[in-house]
Amino acid sequence: MTFQQKLDAIVEQQNSLLCIGLDSELARIPAHLQNKLNPQFAFNKAIIDATHDLVCAYKPNTAFYEAQGAEGISELKMTCDYLREKYPDIVIILDAKRADIGSTNQGYAQFAFDYLGVDAITLHPYLGKDAILPFLERKDRGCFILCRTSNPGAGELQDMKVTPDTGNQAIKLYQYLAKKITEEWNENGNCGLVVGATYPGELEIVRRIAQHIPLLIPGIGAQGGDIEKTVKAGVDSGGKNAIINSSRAVIFAGNGSNFAQKARETALKLIKEINIYR
Amino acid sequence: MTFQQKLDAIVEQQNSLLCIGLDSELARIPAHLQNKLNPQFAFNKAIIDATHDLVCAYKPNTAFYEAQGAEGISELKMTCDYLREKYPDIVIILDAKRADIGSTNQGYAQFAFDYLGVDAITLHPYLGKDAILPFLERKDRGCFILCRTSNPGAGELQDMKVTPDTGNQAIKLYQYLAKKITEEWNENGNCGLVVGATYPGELEIVRRIAQHIPLLIPGIGAQGGDIEKTVKAGVDSGGKNAIINSSRAVIFAGNGSNFAQKARETALKLIKEINIYR
Repeated sequence: MTFQQKLDAIVEQQNSLLCIGLDSELARIPAHLQNKLNPQFAFNKAIIDATHDLVCAYKPNTAFYEAQGAEGISELKMTCDYLREKYPDIVIILDAKRADIGSTNQGYAQFAFDYLGVDAITLHPYLGKDAILPFLERKDRGCFILCRTSNPGAGELQDMKVTPDTGNQAIKLYQYLAKKITEEWNENGNCGLVVGATYPGELEIVRRIAQHIPLLIPGIGAQGGDIEKTVKAGVDSGGKNAIINSSRAVIFAGNGSNFAQKARETALKLIKEINIYR
Repeated sequence: MTFQQKLDAIVEQQNSLLCIGLDSELARIPAHLQNKLNPQFAFNKAIIDATHDLVCAYKPNTAFYEAQGAEGISELKMTCDYLREKYPDIVIILDAKRADIGSTNQGYAQFAFDYLGVDAITLHPYLGKDAILPFLERKDRGCFILCRTSNPGAGELQDMKVTPDTGNQAIKLYQYLAKKITEEWNENGNCGLVVGATYPGELEIVRRIAQHIPLLIPGIGAQGGDIEKTVKAGVDSGGKNAIINSSRAVIFAGNGSNFAQKARETALKLIKEINIYR
Protein backbone atom coordinates (compact mmCIF):
# COMPACT_ATOMS: atom_id res chain seq x y z
CA MET A 1 0.00 0.00 0.00
CA THR A 2 1.34 3.46 -0.84
CA PHE A 3 1.36 6.30 1.66
CA GLN A 4 -1.31 8.10 -0.39
CA GLN A 5 -3.57 5.04 -0.26
CA LYS A 6 -3.14 4.69 3.50
CA LEU A 7 -3.90 8.38 3.97
CA ASP A 8 -6.96 8.29 1.70
CA ALA A 9 -8.33 5.20 3.46
CA ILE A 10 -8.08 6.63 6.97
CA VAL A 11 -9.49 10.04 5.95
CA GLU A 12 -12.46 8.20 4.42
CA GLN A 13 -12.88 5.82 7.35
CA GLN A 14 -12.77 8.48 10.07
CA ASN A 15 -14.21 11.31 7.98
CA SER A 16 -11.48 13.47 9.45
CA LEU A 17 -8.58 15.61 8.25
CA LEU A 18 -7.42 16.18 11.81
CA CYS A 19 -3.89 15.29 12.86
CA ILE A 20 -2.97 15.53 16.52
CA GLY A 21 0.59 16.60 17.21
CA LEU A 22 2.11 14.61 20.05
CA ASP A 23 4.37 17.44 21.22
CA SER A 24 4.45 15.88 24.65
CA GLU A 25 6.93 18.14 26.40
CA LEU A 26 7.70 16.51 29.73
CA ALA A 27 7.37 19.72 31.78
CA ARG A 28 3.86 20.33 30.43
CA ILE A 29 2.22 16.94 30.93
CA PRO A 30 -0.13 16.65 33.94
CA ALA A 31 1.51 16.49 37.35
CA HIS A 32 -0.01 13.12 38.24
CA LEU A 33 1.88 11.51 35.32
CA GLN A 34 5.25 13.11 36.00
CA ASN A 35 6.36 10.49 38.49
CA LYS A 36 5.12 7.50 36.50
CA LEU A 37 7.43 5.19 34.67
CA ASN A 38 7.62 6.43 31.03
CA PRO A 39 5.56 9.56 31.60
CA GLN A 40 5.65 10.76 27.98
CA PHE A 41 4.40 7.40 26.73
CA ALA A 42 1.75 7.19 29.47
CA PHE A 43 0.53 10.64 28.42
CA ASN A 44 0.53 9.78 24.71
CA LYS A 45 -1.27 6.48 25.28
CA ALA A 46 -4.07 8.22 27.16
CA ILE A 47 -4.39 10.91 24.46
CA ILE A 48 -4.36 8.29 21.69
CA ASP A 49 -6.92 6.04 23.38
CA ALA A 50 -9.22 9.03 23.86
CA THR A 51 -8.94 10.38 20.31
CA HIS A 52 -8.13 7.46 17.97
CA ASP A 53 -11.55 7.52 16.30
CA LEU A 54 -11.28 11.23 15.49
CA VAL A 55 -8.02 11.56 13.59
CA CYS A 56 -6.41 10.64 10.29
CA ALA A 57 -2.92 10.97 11.74
CA TYR A 58 -0.72 11.51 14.79
CA LYS A 59 2.41 13.59 14.48
CA PRO A 60 5.02 13.20 17.23
CA ASN A 61 7.73 15.85 17.03
CA THR A 62 11.16 14.38 17.80
CA ALA A 63 12.39 17.51 19.61
CA PHE A 64 10.22 16.89 22.66
CA TYR A 65 11.56 13.34 23.04
CA GLU A 66 15.20 14.09 22.23
CA ALA A 67 15.08 16.73 24.95
CA GLN A 68 14.92 13.76 27.37
CA GLY A 69 17.78 11.93 25.66
CA ALA A 70 17.81 8.15 25.22
CA GLU A 71 14.87 7.79 27.63
CA GLY A 72 12.78 10.14 25.50
CA ILE A 73 13.65 8.27 22.30
CA SER A 74 12.62 5.08 24.01
CA GLU A 75 9.22 6.60 24.90
CA LEU A 76 8.82 7.86 21.35
CA LYS A 77 9.38 4.31 20.13
CA MET A 78 6.88 2.95 22.66
CA THR A 79 4.38 5.48 21.32
CA CYS A 80 4.94 4.47 17.68
CA ASP A 81 4.88 0.76 18.55
CA TYR A 82 1.62 1.22 20.42
CA LEU A 83 0.04 3.08 17.52
CA ARG A 84 1.15 0.56 14.91
CA GLU A 85 -0.08 -2.36 16.98
CA LYS A 86 -3.36 -1.03 18.30
CA TYR A 87 -4.41 1.40 15.55
CA PRO A 88 -2.55 0.25 12.43
CA ASP A 89 -4.78 2.19 10.02
CA ILE A 90 -3.86 5.58 11.47
CA VAL A 91 -1.02 7.44 9.75
CA ILE A 92 2.05 8.29 11.86
CA ILE A 93 4.04 11.31 10.69
CA LEU A 94 7.40 11.82 12.38
CA ASP A 95 7.94 15.55 12.57
CA ALA A 96 11.71 15.36 12.53
CA LYS A 97 12.65 18.06 10.00
CA ARG A 98 15.78 16.18 8.96
CA ALA A 99 18.04 16.35 5.91
CA ASP A 100 21.75 15.67 5.53
CA ILE A 101 23.88 14.54 2.62
CA GLY A 102 22.73 11.31 0.99
CA SER A 103 24.84 8.69 2.73
CA THR A 104 24.02 10.19 6.12
CA ASN A 105 20.29 10.32 5.46
CA GLN A 106 20.33 6.51 5.34
CA GLY A 107 20.74 6.68 9.13
CA TYR A 108 17.77 9.00 9.58
CA ALA A 109 15.60 6.93 7.23
CA GLN A 110 16.52 3.85 9.27
CA PHE A 111 15.55 5.68 12.50
CA ALA A 112 12.19 6.88 11.18
CA PHE A 113 11.02 4.08 8.91
CA ASP A 114 12.64 0.97 10.43
CA TYR A 115 13.29 1.63 14.12
CA LEU A 116 10.17 3.72 14.80
CA GLY A 117 8.22 2.34 11.84
CA VAL A 118 6.42 5.58 10.98
CA ASP A 119 4.56 6.17 7.71
CA ALA A 120 6.00 9.58 6.88
CA ILE A 121 8.62 12.11 7.91
CA THR A 122 9.09 15.88 7.55
CA LEU A 123 12.23 17.09 5.73
CA HIS A 124 14.21 20.27 5.04
CA PRO A 125 14.66 21.12 1.33
CA TYR A 126 17.88 23.17 1.50
CA LEU A 127 20.27 20.39 0.34
CA GLY A 128 18.25 19.57 -2.77
CA LYS A 129 16.72 16.40 -4.16
CA ASP A 130 19.86 14.26 -4.43
CA ALA A 131 20.46 14.50 -0.70
CA ILE A 132 17.00 13.31 0.32
CA LEU A 133 16.84 10.38 -2.10
CA PRO A 134 17.24 7.85 0.77
CA PHE A 135 13.82 9.07 1.96
CA LEU A 136 12.19 9.53 -1.45
CA GLU A 137 13.24 6.03 -2.51
CA ARG A 138 11.18 4.47 0.26
CA LYS A 139 8.17 4.35 -2.05
CA ASP A 140 5.71 3.22 0.60
CA ARG A 141 6.54 6.12 2.95
CA GLY A 142 5.57 9.77 2.74
CA CYS A 143 8.06 12.67 2.61
CA PHE A 144 6.63 16.02 3.72
CA ILE A 145 9.04 18.71 2.64
CA LEU A 146 9.05 22.12 4.34
CA CYS A 147 7.67 24.67 1.89
CA ARG A 148 6.16 27.68 3.72
CA THR A 149 6.49 27.24 7.47
CA SER A 150 4.19 28.60 10.18
CA ASN A 151 6.69 30.72 12.16
CA PRO A 152 6.53 34.55 12.17
CA GLY A 153 9.82 34.94 10.27
CA ALA A 154 9.12 32.20 7.72
CA GLY A 155 9.29 34.66 4.85
CA GLU A 156 12.88 35.71 5.54
CA LEU A 157 14.24 33.11 3.12
CA GLN A 158 11.07 31.46 1.84
CA ASP A 159 9.70 34.67 0.29
CA MET A 160 12.94 35.61 -1.47
CA LYS A 161 12.33 36.25 -5.13
CA VAL A 162 14.23 33.70 -7.18
CA THR A 163 14.88 33.63 -10.91
CA PRO A 164 14.77 30.14 -12.43
CA ASP A 165 17.41 29.37 -15.07
CA THR A 166 14.65 28.79 -17.61
CA GLY A 167 14.36 32.55 -17.84
CA ASN A 168 10.89 32.56 -16.37
CA GLN A 169 9.83 35.49 -14.25
CA ALA A 170 11.02 35.75 -10.67
CA ILE A 171 8.83 33.93 -8.16
CA LYS A 172 9.09 33.41 -4.43
CA LEU A 173 11.36 30.60 -3.26
CA TYR A 174 8.55 28.63 -1.58
CA GLN A 175 6.49 28.74 -4.78
CA TYR A 176 9.46 27.66 -6.87
CA LEU A 177 10.03 24.81 -4.45
CA ALA A 178 6.37 23.72 -4.50
CA LYS A 179 6.57 23.56 -8.30
CA LYS A 180 9.91 21.77 -8.33
CA ILE A 181 8.82 19.16 -5.78
CA THR A 182 5.55 18.52 -7.59
CA GLU A 183 7.21 18.20 -10.99
CA GLU A 184 10.64 16.75 -10.25
CA TRP A 185 10.97 15.33 -6.74
CA ASN A 186 7.71 13.39 -6.70
CA GLU A 187 8.62 10.60 -9.11
CA ASN A 188 7.51 7.96 -6.62
CA GLY A 189 4.29 9.76 -5.78
CA ASN A 190 5.25 10.00 -2.12
CA CYS A 191 5.98 13.71 -1.66
CA GLY A 192 3.91 16.08 0.41
CA LEU A 193 4.46 19.69 1.44
CA VAL A 194 4.40 21.42 4.82
CA VAL A 195 2.58 24.76 4.71
CA GLY A 196 1.64 26.72 7.84
CA ALA A 197 -2.00 27.52 8.60
CA THR A 198 -0.82 30.91 9.81
CA TYR A 199 -0.44 31.97 6.16
CA PRO A 200 -3.72 31.07 4.37
CA GLY A 201 -2.84 33.22 1.35
CA GLU A 202 0.40 31.34 0.78
CA LEU A 203 -1.40 28.06 1.46
CA GLU A 204 -3.86 28.84 -1.31
CA ILE A 205 -1.02 29.55 -3.73
CA VAL A 206 0.76 26.31 -2.84
CA ARG A 207 -2.45 24.32 -3.34
CA ARG A 208 -2.83 25.92 -6.77
CA ILE A 209 0.71 24.84 -7.70
CA ALA A 210 0.58 21.39 -6.10
CA GLN A 211 -2.95 20.34 -6.90
CA HIS A 212 -2.76 16.65 -6.14
CA ILE A 213 -0.27 16.12 -3.36
CA PRO A 214 -0.95 15.96 0.37
CA LEU A 215 -0.36 19.10 2.40
CA LEU A 216 0.57 18.89 6.06
CA ILE A 217 -0.75 22.05 7.66
CA PRO A 218 0.36 22.91 11.20
CA GLY A 219 -0.50 26.17 12.91
CA ILE A 220 -4.16 26.08 13.92
CA GLY A 221 -4.70 26.21 17.67
CA ALA A 222 -1.84 27.60 19.75
CA GLN A 223 -0.25 29.32 16.75
CA GLY A 224 -3.51 31.03 15.79
CA GLY A 225 -4.30 29.81 12.25
CA ASP A 226 -7.92 30.37 11.13
CA ILE A 227 -9.78 27.09 10.54
CA GLU A 228 -12.19 28.24 7.83
CA LYS A 229 -9.46 29.86 5.75
CA THR A 230 -7.09 26.95 6.32
CA VAL A 231 -9.53 24.27 5.24
CA LYS A 232 -10.82 26.16 2.20
CA ALA A 233 -7.31 26.95 1.01
CA GLY A 234 -5.73 23.62 1.92
CA VAL A 235 -7.97 20.85 0.60
CA ASP A 236 -7.73 19.56 -2.96
CA SER A 237 -10.64 19.65 -5.40
CA GLY A 238 -12.08 16.54 -3.72
CA GLY A 239 -12.10 18.17 -0.27
CA LYS A 240 -9.21 15.95 0.84
CA ASN A 241 -5.42 15.60 0.89
CA ALA A 242 -4.99 18.19 3.63
CA ILE A 243 -3.73 17.02 7.01
CA ILE A 244 -4.63 19.72 9.48
CA ASN A 245 -2.57 19.56 12.61
CA SER A 246 -3.17 20.85 16.10
CA SER A 247 -0.72 19.97 18.85
CA ARG A 248 -0.67 21.92 22.09
CA ALA A 249 -4.27 23.20 21.87
CA VAL A 250 -5.50 19.60 21.89
CA ILE A 251 -3.07 17.63 24.03
CA PHE A 252 -2.78 20.30 26.73
CA ALA A 253 -6.49 21.26 26.71
CA GLY A 254 -6.68 20.05 30.30
CA ASN A 255 -4.05 19.27 32.87
CA GLY A 256 -6.02 17.47 35.56
CA SER A 257 -6.89 13.78 35.77
CA ASN A 258 -9.43 14.33 32.95
CA PHE A 259 -6.82 15.67 30.48
CA ALA A 260 -7.54 12.96 27.92
CA GLN A 261 -11.27 13.68 27.98
CA LYS A 262 -10.50 17.40 27.54
CA ALA A 263 -8.29 16.56 24.57
CA ARG A 264 -11.13 14.53 23.06
CA GLU A 265 -13.60 17.38 23.49
CA THR A 266 -11.22 19.82 21.80
CA ALA A 267 -10.50 17.39 18.96
CA LEU A 268 -14.24 16.80 18.45
CA LYS A 269 -14.87 20.53 18.18
CA LEU A 270 -12.02 20.84 15.69
CA ILE A 271 -13.16 18.09 13.32
CA LYS A 272 -16.71 19.39 13.36
CA GLU A 273 -15.46 22.84 12.42
CA ILE A 274 -13.05 21.45 9.82
CA ASN A 275 -15.78 19.34 8.22
CA ILE A 276 -18.10 22.35 7.84
CA TYR A 277 -15.63 23.93 5.44
CA ARG A 278 -14.44 20.89 3.45
CA MET B 1 34.28 31.50 27.65
CA THR B 2 32.70 32.06 24.24
CA PHE B 3 32.66 29.38 21.55
CA GLN B 4 35.08 31.46 19.47
CA GLN B 5 37.52 31.65 22.39
CA LYS B 6 37.35 27.92 22.99
CA LEU B 7 37.93 27.25 19.29
CA ASP B 8 40.84 29.70 19.06
CA ALA B 9 42.49 28.21 22.15
CA ILE B 10 42.39 24.60 20.95
CA VAL B 11 43.52 25.48 17.42
CA GLU B 12 46.49 27.30 18.96
CA GLN B 13 47.23 24.54 21.49
CA GLN B 14 47.12 21.66 19.01
CA ASN B 15 48.28 23.65 15.97
CA SER B 16 45.51 21.91 14.08
CA LEU B 17 42.43 22.80 12.07
CA LEU B 18 41.44 19.14 11.78
CA CYS B 19 38.06 17.95 12.95
CA ILE B 20 37.35 14.25 12.98
CA GLY B 21 33.78 13.30 12.17
CA LEU B 22 32.56 10.51 14.43
CA ASP B 23 30.20 9.02 11.81
CA SER B 24 30.43 5.70 13.57
CA GLU B 25 27.93 3.67 11.59
CA LEU B 26 27.44 0.41 13.44
CA ALA B 27 27.72 -1.80 10.35
CA ARG B 28 31.10 -0.30 9.44
CA ILE B 29 32.96 -0.52 12.75
CA PRO B 30 35.48 -3.35 13.07
CA ALA B 31 34.07 -6.83 13.54
CA HIS B 32 35.83 -7.41 16.86
CA LEU B 33 33.86 -4.51 18.40
CA GLN B 34 30.45 -5.47 17.05
CA ASN B 35 29.63 -7.84 19.87
CA LYS B 36 30.93 -5.63 22.65
CA LEU B 37 28.65 -3.78 25.01
CA ASN B 38 28.18 -0.24 23.57
CA PRO B 39 30.09 -0.90 20.35
CA GLN B 40 29.72 2.64 18.95
CA PHE B 41 31.09 4.16 22.15
CA ALA B 42 33.91 1.60 22.35
CA PHE B 43 34.85 2.50 18.77
CA ASN B 44 34.68 6.25 19.42
CA LYS B 45 36.69 5.98 22.63
CA ALA B 46 39.48 4.17 20.82
CA ILE B 47 39.50 6.70 17.97
CA ILE B 48 39.46 9.63 20.41
CA ASP B 49 42.25 8.24 22.60
CA ALA B 50 44.39 7.68 19.50
CA THR B 51 43.81 11.14 17.96
CA HIS B 52 43.03 13.60 20.78
CA ASP B 53 46.34 15.46 20.42
CA LEU B 54 45.81 16.01 16.69
CA VAL B 55 42.42 17.70 16.44
CA CYS B 56 40.67 20.95 17.26
CA ALA B 57 37.25 19.29 17.24
CA TYR B 58 35.22 16.10 17.02
CA LYS B 59 31.96 16.09 15.13
CA PRO B 60 29.57 13.22 15.84
CA ASN B 61 26.70 13.10 13.36
CA THR B 62 23.41 12.24 15.08
CA ALA B 63 22.11 10.16 12.14
CA PHE B 64 24.50 7.28 12.82
CA TYR B 65 23.40 7.05 16.45
CA GLU B 66 19.67 7.61 15.87
CA ALA B 67 19.79 4.72 13.39
CA GLN B 68 20.26 2.51 16.49
CA GLY B 69 17.42 4.18 18.38
CA ALA B 70 17.58 4.85 22.11
CA GLU B 71 20.67 2.64 22.45
CA GLY B 72 22.50 4.74 19.85
CA ILE B 73 21.55 8.00 21.57
CA SER B 74 22.86 6.54 24.80
CA GLU B 75 26.21 5.76 23.13
CA LEU B 76 26.32 9.24 21.64
CA LYS B 77 25.89 10.65 25.14
CA MET B 78 28.62 8.36 26.49
CA THR B 79 30.89 9.68 23.73
CA CYS B 80 30.16 13.33 24.55
CA ASP B 81 30.48 12.70 28.30
CA TYR B 82 33.83 11.00 27.76
CA LEU B 83 35.12 13.86 25.63
CA ARG B 84 34.00 16.56 28.06
CA GLU B 85 35.52 14.76 31.01
CA LYS B 86 38.80 13.54 29.57
CA TYR B 87 39.55 16.17 26.90
CA PRO B 88 37.58 19.26 27.98
CA ASP B 89 39.53 21.66 25.77
CA ILE B 90 38.50 19.95 22.54
CA VAL B 91 35.46 21.39 20.77
CA ILE B 92 32.47 19.06 20.23
CA ILE B 93 30.25 19.92 17.27
CA LEU B 94 26.99 18.02 17.08
CA ASP B 95 26.24 17.54 13.39
CA ALA B 96 22.49 17.39 13.82
CA LYS B 97 21.24 19.68 11.05
CA ARG B 98 18.19 20.66 13.04
CA ALA B 99 15.73 23.55 12.83
CA ASP B 100 12.06 23.76 13.70
CA ILE B 101 9.81 26.62 14.78
CA GLY B 102 11.04 28.53 17.83
CA SER B 103 9.19 26.82 20.67
CA THR B 104 10.14 23.39 19.34
CA ASN B 105 13.80 24.26 18.94
CA GLN B 106 13.98 24.60 22.73
CA GLY B 107 13.77 20.81 22.82
CA TYR B 108 16.63 20.38 20.35
CA ALA B 109 18.76 22.97 22.15
CA GLN B 110 18.15 21.07 25.39
CA PHE B 111 19.20 17.81 23.71
CA ALA B 112 22.41 19.25 22.22
CA PHE B 113 23.60 21.75 24.80
CA ASP B 114 22.26 20.34 28.08
CA TYR B 115 21.79 16.58 27.69
CA LEU B 116 24.82 15.95 25.45
CA GLY B 117 26.66 19.10 26.53
CA VAL B 118 28.22 19.85 23.15
CA ASP B 119 29.86 23.17 22.25
CA ALA B 120 28.16 23.70 18.90
CA ILE B 121 25.47 22.39 16.59
CA THR B 122 24.77 22.47 12.85
CA LEU B 123 21.47 24.03 11.72
CA HIS B 124 19.26 24.41 8.64
CA PRO B 125 18.55 28.01 7.59
CA TYR B 126 15.23 27.54 5.76
CA LEU B 127 12.93 28.72 8.59
CA GLY B 128 14.81 31.97 9.10
CA LYS B 129 16.42 33.66 12.08
CA ASP B 130 13.40 33.88 14.39
CA ALA B 131 13.02 30.11 14.40
CA ILE B 132 16.60 29.37 15.44
CA LEU B 133 16.79 31.98 18.21
CA PRO B 134 16.69 29.26 20.92
CA PHE B 135 20.11 28.19 19.58
CA LEU B 136 21.50 31.66 18.82
CA GLU B 137 20.59 32.88 22.30
CA ARG B 138 22.91 30.33 23.90
CA LYS B 139 25.76 32.80 23.69
CA ASP B 140 28.45 30.37 24.83
CA ARG B 141 27.60 27.81 22.13
CA GLY B 142 28.33 27.85 18.42
CA CYS B 143 25.69 27.64 15.68
CA PHE B 144 26.99 26.41 12.32
CA ILE B 145 24.37 27.19 9.72
CA LEU B 146 24.27 25.28 6.42
CA CYS B 147 25.35 27.63 3.65
CA ARG B 148 26.79 25.71 0.66
CA THR B 149 26.72 21.99 1.35
CA SER B 150 29.09 19.31 0.02
CA ASN B 151 26.61 17.06 -1.82
CA PRO B 152 26.54 16.81 -5.63
CA GLY B 153 23.13 18.51 -5.95
CA ALA B 154 23.83 21.26 -3.41
CA GLY B 155 23.34 23.95 -6.02
CA GLU B 156 19.75 22.99 -6.82
CA LEU B 157 18.39 25.49 -4.29
CA GLN B 158 21.56 27.05 -2.91
CA ASP B 159 22.66 28.46 -6.29
CA MET B 160 19.26 29.95 -7.14
CA LYS B 161 19.60 33.62 -8.04
CA VAL B 162 17.72 35.71 -5.49
CA THR B 163 16.86 39.37 -5.60
CA PRO B 164 17.08 41.13 -2.23
CA ASP B 165 14.34 43.67 -1.45
CA THR B 166 16.94 46.38 -1.20
CA GLY B 167 17.01 46.40 -4.98
CA ASN B 168 20.54 45.12 -5.14
CA GLN B 169 21.56 42.87 -8.00
CA ALA B 170 20.58 39.23 -7.96
CA ILE B 171 23.03 36.97 -6.11
CA LYS B 172 23.04 33.28 -5.34
CA LEU B 173 21.02 32.15 -2.35
CA TYR B 174 24.01 30.77 -0.45
CA GLN B 175 25.86 34.07 -0.89
CA TYR B 176 22.85 36.06 0.26
CA LEU B 177 22.59 33.79 3.27
CA ALA B 178 26.29 34.12 4.13
CA LYS B 179 25.87 37.91 4.07
CA LYS B 180 22.65 37.86 6.07
CA ILE B 181 24.04 35.55 8.74
CA THR B 182 27.22 37.58 9.08
CA GLU B 183 25.38 40.90 9.28
CA GLU B 184 22.09 40.06 10.99
CA TRP B 185 22.05 36.63 12.63
CA ASN B 186 25.42 36.89 14.38
CA GLU B 187 24.52 39.42 17.06
CA ASN B 188 25.93 37.17 19.78
CA GLY B 189 29.09 36.41 17.83
CA ASN B 190 28.35 32.69 17.88
CA CYS B 191 27.44 31.95 14.25
CA GLY B 192 29.50 29.86 11.89
CA LEU B 193 28.79 28.57 8.40
CA VAL B 194 28.97 25.10 6.87
CA VAL B 195 30.58 25.10 3.42
CA GLY B 196 31.60 21.92 1.60
CA ALA B 197 35.23 21.31 0.62
CA THR B 198 33.92 19.82 -2.60
CA TYR B 199 33.26 23.38 -3.85
CA PRO B 200 36.47 25.39 -3.28
CA GLY B 201 35.27 28.20 -5.55
CA GLU B 202 32.12 28.72 -3.51
CA LEU B 203 34.16 28.36 -0.31
CA GLU B 204 36.39 31.21 -1.41
CA ILE B 205 33.37 33.41 -2.09
CA VAL B 206 31.85 32.63 1.30
CA ARG B 207 35.13 33.44 3.05
CA ARG B 208 35.20 36.79 1.25
CA ILE B 209 31.68 37.59 2.48
CA ALA B 210 32.10 36.19 5.99
CA GLN B 211 35.63 37.27 6.78
CA HIS B 212 35.71 36.73 10.51
CA ILE B 213 33.43 33.85 11.36
CA PRO B 214 34.34 30.18 11.71
CA LEU B 215 33.69 27.93 8.74
CA LEU B 216 33.00 24.24 9.23
CA ILE B 217 34.23 22.52 6.09
CA PRO B 218 33.29 18.88 5.52
CA GLY B 219 34.05 17.02 2.31
CA ILE B 220 37.76 16.23 2.25
CA GLY B 221 38.53 12.51 2.30
CA ALA B 222 35.73 10.20 1.22
CA GLN B 223 33.85 12.99 -0.58
CA GLY B 224 36.96 14.00 -2.52
CA GLY B 225 37.58 17.66 -1.57
CA ASP B 226 41.09 18.95 -2.43
CA ILE B 227 43.09 19.85 0.68
CA GLU B 228 45.27 22.62 -0.77
CA LYS B 229 42.34 24.43 -2.34
CA THR B 230 40.18 23.92 0.74
CA VAL B 231 42.70 25.29 3.19
CA LYS B 232 43.69 28.28 1.06
CA ALA B 233 40.07 29.21 0.41
CA GLY B 234 38.76 28.44 3.87
CA VAL B 235 41.07 30.04 6.43
CA ASP B 236 40.69 33.66 7.52
CA SER B 237 43.42 36.26 7.09
CA GLY B 238 45.15 34.86 10.19
CA GLY B 239 45.26 31.33 8.76
CA LYS B 240 42.59 30.19 11.23
CA ASN B 241 38.84 29.95 11.82
CA ALA B 242 38.43 27.02 9.43
CA ILE B 243 37.44 23.67 10.88
CA ILE B 244 38.35 21.08 8.28
CA ASN B 245 36.47 17.86 8.75
CA SER B 246 37.21 14.33 7.65
CA SER B 247 34.99 11.51 8.83
CA ARG B 248 35.02 8.14 7.08
CA ALA B 249 38.53 8.49 5.57
CA VAL B 250 39.95 8.78 9.10
CA ILE B 251 37.79 6.63 11.32
CA PHE B 252 37.49 3.76 8.84
CA ALA B 253 41.13 3.93 7.67
CA GLY B 254 41.59 0.43 9.05
CA ASN B 255 39.17 -2.22 10.17
CA GLY B 256 41.40 -4.67 11.98
CA SER B 257 42.49 -4.60 15.60
CA ASN B 258 44.83 -1.69 14.75
CA PHE B 259 42.01 0.54 13.43
CA ALA B 260 42.70 3.32 15.93
CA GLN B 261 46.40 3.41 14.99
CA LYS B 262 45.40 3.58 11.30
CA ALA B 263 43.07 6.46 12.09
CA ARG B 264 45.92 8.25 13.86
CA GLU B 265 48.25 7.79 10.90
CA THR B 266 45.64 9.18 8.51
CA ALA B 267 44.89 12.12 10.80
CA LEU B 268 48.61 12.88 11.14
CA LYS B 269 49.01 12.95 7.36
CA LEU B 270 46.01 15.23 7.09
CA ILE B 271 47.15 17.85 9.61
CA LYS B 272 50.60 17.92 8.10
CA GLU B 273 49.11 18.57 4.69
CA ILE B 274 46.63 21.11 6.06
CA ASN B 275 49.38 22.97 7.90
CA ILE B 276 51.51 23.30 4.74
CA TYR B 277 48.82 25.47 3.16
CA ARG B 278 47.71 27.57 6.16
